[in-house]
Amino acid sequence: MKHIIYALVDNKPGVLARISGLFSARGFNIDSLAVGETHDPTVSRVTMVVNAQDERILEQIKKQLDKLIDVMTVIDLTKKEFFERELVLLKLNTAKTTRQKLLVLFKNISAKILSYDKKEAIVEITAAKAQLNDLLAQLSKIGIKELVRTGIIAIGK
Amino acid sequence: MKHIIYALVDNKPGVLARISGLFSARGFNIDSLAVGETHDPTVSRVTMVVNAQDERILEQIKKQLDKLIDVMTVIDLTKKEFFERELVLLKLNTAKTTRQKLLVLFKNISAKILSYDKKEAIVEITAAKAQLNDLLAQLSKIGIKELVRTGIIAIGK
Repeated sequence: MKHIIYALVDNKPGVLARISGLFSARGFNIDSLAVGETHDPTVSRVTMVVNAQDERILEQIKKQLDKLIDVMTVIDLTKKEFFERELVLLKLNTAKTTRQKLLVLFKNISAKILSYDKKEAIVEITAAKAQLNDLLAQLSKIGIKELVRTGIIAIGK
Repeated sequence: MKHIIYALVDNKPGVLARISGLFSARGFNIDSLAVGETHDPTVSRVTMVVNAQDERILEQIKKQLDKLIDVMTVIDLTKKEFFERELVLLKLNTAKTTRQKLLVLFKNISAKILSYDKKEAIVEITAAKAQLNDLLAQLSKIGIKELVRTGIIAIGK
């Protein structure tokens, strides 16, 4: 089962290495991770998406995370109500499309064409996971040359 | 000097711990880090923002990164042309504002009000660093209750 977990941590060297080390020590892959400052610059917020094959081991990891000196809070949003969003930057092949066709694809989504020429376009897209995956499937038919994702961040309702 | 560095890495357990360990072993703080899958699901892209007090040490870290078995490419975008964007989710205090006032603030920026009631609003904002910091300064006067950032991602022009 996919879990979205966030932790509030001290913004200082070594914290991220300790957190990611806790997961890798148990062979857990972190699907995505995003860390940035909060409105308090001494505190960072780390958002992780983890696919747990074994829920008991994930429970252990969360408890150990919570015990780290640099970690203040660990929240698993999985059973809560939340908004989740991800930002993607894409370089698309424009040989088989037009700016107009792209704008039609982006009609119901937060997307913006940052640059466009005969060879390639660069676009930004912000969306929830399901909507994003649908759009990426359509864009891959046009031709994705480069793809950068932030990983999911989430906020409780 | 601030550096935006990205690495293409194998999408498997332990890689992130090794990368972040290289930085923390030299007392380097990673200001933000975002990691997600690329269009090849076996490959992840890690984007880091690092403030280098000592440029020579950062050069060493980049070389060591490049030597890690799981790391395919390391690119420092600092002297290149690129687009950089960050996504932020915010919970705002709505006691001293209105939906209309927020929409005016968001006029020239990619922002969306996800929910709004008498107590609080949840909004998503996607922008480049400078524009985002300006807006966050204005929003902090209204009252930021919760702030989640993805960290910067970037794509070469």
